[in-house]
Amino acid sequence: MEFKKIKNKYLIRLDKDEKIIGTLLNFLKNNKIKAGFFLGLGAIHEVELAHYALENKKYSSKSLKGAFEIVSLLGNSCIFDGKEYIHAHIIVGDSEMKTYGGHLKEAVVGPTCEIIFEEIDGEIGREYSEEIGLNLFKF
Amino acid sequence: MEFKKIKNKYLIRLDKDEKIIGTLLNFLKNNKIKAGFFLGLGAIHEVELAHYALENKKYSSKSLKGAFEIVSLLGNSCIFDGKEYIHAHIIVGDSEMKTYGGHLKEAVVGPTCEIIFEEIDGEIGREYSEEIGLNLFKF
Amino acid sequence: MEFKKIKNKYLIRLDKDEKIIGTLLNFLKNNKIKAGFFLGLGAIHEVELAHYALENKKYSSKSLKGAFEIVSLLGNSCIFDGKEYIHAHIIVGDSEMKTYGGHLKEAVVGPTCEIIFEEIDGEIGREYSEEIGLNLFKF
Repeated sequence: MEFKKIKNKYLIRLDKDEKIIGTLLNFLKNNKIKAGFFLGLGAIHEVELAHYALENKKYSSKSLKGAFEIVSLLGNSCIFDGKEYIHAHIIVGDSEMKTYGGHLKEAVVGPTCEIIFEEIDGEIGREYSEEIGLNLFKF
Repeated sequence: MEFKKIKNKYLIRLDKDEKIIGTLLNFLKNNKIKAGFFLGLGAIHEVELAHYALENKKYSSKSLKGAFEIVSLLGNSCIFDGKEYIHAHIIVGDSEMKTYGGHLKEAVVGPTCEIIFEEIDGEIGREYSEEIGLNLFKF
Repeated sequence: MEFKKIKNKYLIRLDKDEKIIGTLLNFLKNNKIKAGFFLGLGAIHEVELAHYALENKKYSSKSLKGAFEIVSLLGNSCIFDGKEYIHAHIIVGDSEMKTYGGHLKEAVVGPTCEIIFEEIDGEIGREYSEEIGLNLFKF
């Protein structure tokens, strides 16, 4: 990965075989970024998508392998429980231009991934909700 | 819903059973926000998607119920005809990670919905177009 | 097309029958914009989606015609080889709310297209990668 900072924005290139979430978490830690949001595009050759069922408070997941475009990547980051935390959703497209989307557990970059990350000059809190079973925004 | 303002950005959490468009319109009104744009992710348990046909100048729509991730939510807001106005498109994903998308008429939040709304320091105009049958950006 | 500049943001309306990429490239040139990123929504009546296969370093593409909502449009721009350069991915939805997505080669606007373009106060470099076969971010 390589990045460039311009004011409060980071332009990021993730490279072939790098993990999107793992690499971004390291990037946030190394750059002491407390909160922000991002959008991205590119391609992956492996992704684990997840879907949350409130009724049993569990994620189901599905792994896809092969050449997929990242047709949308939207997410936010904060510090939760003392550590960098990312919440992102992704949509990928196959060679038939069919799309699949969900909560992004992890993905492995294919040819490249381009992300615009905007740092927010403040903090975003999160708190576990017993009712929902997830770590929700808490201000 | 709960939100936090950091400079020109609002971090917003919408809660279970809240309507996305209705709640955001109230939020814009209460905070006297004249224009902005947003991106979001989360989940819904009800959504009405719409598709516009220029030939008859009408939206057709489709309602989905059940647990769907919001895999993408993009929109903008302005004041039109003296009132807050939102134009948003959404893509949702089911438990098979299949996606459905369209113009967002309304949706009811499932576990949570996280939105980053950026206020624009100016106004966005709209004007009804006879030819198109929609309220288009007008500057 | 019509646009309005507010600080570092351009609100853009593309009109029926205008090409998205072609019109944006002219807009960037006319306004001497060196780098930025954007998000958009709207509708198209023609689009060429592409999908990259690293194994043969070639894009395959698929053209869709008819009334499609632009349910997501994400992209970035820079100057590459002395000229304006856009990299964008798009997801479109049909009247059944089914979605198709990929690398955006070109699209022809239907009723309208609304874009928020944010100029970045700096430069984004790109460089051709022999290994990948694409022009990647280079900082």
